[in-house]
Amino acid sequence: MNYQIQRLRSEMRRRGLDVFVAFQDTRYFTGTTAGKALIVPLSGEPVLLCSRLEQDQAKKGRVKDVRAYSGWKAPLRPGERVHFRDAWMIIADCVRDFGAHSVGYDRASKSLIRKIRNVRHASYSEMPELVPEARSVKSPEELKLARRSAEIVSKGMKRASELIEAGRTEIEIAAEAEYVMRKAGSEGVSFPSIVASGANSALPHAFATFKKLRSHELVVVDIGAVYEGYSSDMTRTFAIEPTKAQSRLLEAVKKAQAAGIARVKDGVPAREVDFAARNFVSRAGYSKFFSHGTGHGVGIEIHEPPSLWPESKDVLKANMVITVEPGAYVPKVGGARWEDMVLVKRGGREMLTYL
Amino acid sequence: MNYQIQRLRSEMRRRGLDVFVAFQDTRYFTGTTAGKALIVPLSGEPVLLCSRLEQDQAKKGRVKDVRAYSGWKAPLRPGERVHFRDAWMIIADCVRDFGAHSVGYDRASKSLIRKIRNVRHASYSEMPELVPEARSVKSPEELKLARRSAEIVSKGMKRASELIEAGRTEIEIAAEAEYVMRKAGSEGVSFPSIVASGANSALPHAFATFKKLRSHELVVVDIGAVYEGYSSDMTRTFAIEPTKAQSRLLEAVKKAQAAGIARVKDGVPAREVDFAARNFVSRAGYSKFFSHGTGHGVGIEIHEPPSLWPESKDVLKANMVITVEPGAYVPKVGGARWEDMVLVKRGGREMLTYL
Repeated sequence: MNYQIQRLRSEMRRRGLDVFVAFQDTRYFTGTTAGKALIVPLSGEPVLLCSRLEQDQAKKGRVKDVRAYSGWKAPLRPGERVHFRDAWMIIADCVRDFGAHSVGYDRASKSLIRKIRNVRHASYSEMPELVPEARSVKSPEELKLARRSAEIVSKGMKRASELIEAGRTEIEIAAEAEYVMRKAGSEGVSFPSIVASGANSALPHAFATFKKLRSHELVVVDIGAVYEGYSSDMTRTFAIEPTKAQSRLLEAVKKAQAAGIARVKDGVPAREVDFAARNFVSRAGYSKFFSHGTGHGVGIEIHEPPSLWPESKDVLKANMVITVEPGAYVPKVGGARWEDMVLVKRGGREMLTYL
Repeated sequence: MNYQIQRLRSEMRRRGLDVFVAFQDTRYFTGTTAGKALIVPLSGEPVLLCSRLEQDQAKKGRVKDVRAYSGWKAPLRPGERVHFRDAWMIIADCVRDFGAHSVGYDRASKSLIRKIRNVRHASYSEMPELVPEARSVKSPEELKLARRSAEIVSKGMKRASELIEAGRTEIEIAAEAEYVMRKAGSEGVSFPSIVASGANSALPHAFATFKKLRSHELVVVDIGAVYEGYSSDMTRTFAIEPTKAQSRLLEAVKKAQAAGIARVKDGVPAREVDFAARNFVSRAGYSKFFSHGTGHGVGIEIHEPPSLWPESKDVLKANMVITVEPGAYVPKVGGARWEDMVLVKRGGREMLTYL
């Protein structure tokens, strides 16, 4: 049985669950995007439900027992097997067949759970945090994909860096970086690319617009790729003939990031990394302008546990992949953020992104 | 008050709701992606909640009363106003201030609704279909964006068509089409691009891989852009030195699409469009190989009401935007699908995509 299912089962035991139904997180367990729900018992084969249209893809994943369903009796292809029932009915049958009394699930509509509960008595508990937490420590196989995703985003950033000059549009730079990442095997962006210049750079969550880059501007480029489901995330801030205030801001943020990264290792509380970076930003005089956390885990989702901010209770563990990304956004000067992906190791760390 | 809020309120009146809370569908009402929840009373100003980091973007939208919140007391910028409370507390206050007894919402976690209910007694009903249904008929302003999105995807398809030749990879074609769309102003893809050649073409929901195109293959290209939130969707099937069986399949699917489109007008049941296309595919001998519906509405989401399939109860109305996309997927021959976006008009239709 695979590493991911093993991790889930140890969480299930800890919480007294007989069955876990993953609606959102099927790709993590199965390696395919084609699943609609994965039903995992404490022992025995998990069952993957998929829509009829996606059964060929679903069968390429790691789960053997794939059940295709359809609410509509369209004719069958030769050899095709389809359950002409609603998904909730098949889930209810699994709850019965696995003899479950205590069922956990990640996230589902109330009405879907109500239908299952009506025909199959058990305790049903929504546990949206269970899988993301189990996922925060990566397997060697997952680390290969995360490394590749980090390499791809590094290539995209290199391309963006070549294009920073007055007169180009933000969206042109985003398009070029995305194109390079796509040709390198990215499935798409892990979030809408940010290329934010001038006043836009002071918005931590800007997009890319048709605005042209100009002299005396900071340009925040924050992009991400997805490689076989694994997201990457990287930010650089470029400066076009910067003012003194802009250079000062940029230097402070870069040094703050280095101070944060230097704290990363197995066993360190996440808030200590945040503190190291934040302290540096504050001492440089920007304490009011660093309004977000210092970083987050990254994997199947772009934001996963652990969370690096002043009130975080998370502790870094070996084989977590995190970002370290302090920033400061100063009205009339502009914004700066500097972000890399870092692999937490026993006694230290390894940088996954580079430029 | 804007068209979208008016449509929502007429649905709220019909269902006896005093307040509707949109968690998923905020962009439709506000024009910004920055909202976390929009609270709409039957009369008076709606309230948009947003995270502190996104307040500048949120204020660029159509809602005047924007309230930023944060669970963490980071220092305030000069002039900044932030509610240092959880989002659910602010929603509960709105329910109280609007004097609501009956609250609808689109989709939210059970625990979030439970917290609100615990401090503010009212009836809370999950109504995930309400906004998508209200959204199916587009305003003139929305149609401008849908037209532009359709133009952009047509450009992307033109670029893909120029690249269809043996030796190129699927992913290369996807990357080029996406690049052209992005530079034309697309925010990103409306779904993962499909470039599916040879055996891949027989999977209705394939992606783009590093597989090279070869002679005697069908190549299904199904792509979409997003323009200011509005999705587009278009499919063409190309053939490289096709076999007779491949040419026959492709011709049948193209003619089936024309037969379906010819039925599109205001007042026609959606299933009649499906029937016209499906009947054509069946009579050509491919009845077992057309396993999906003939089309769907498209707008803020890539799949919206109405739904065009044999058991659909939807009726086409003027200013709906739909796809018409019959297909057939024949083992050893390959797959073919042909899809355009069509605007439903009084007495007829208008094609929005073109190649």
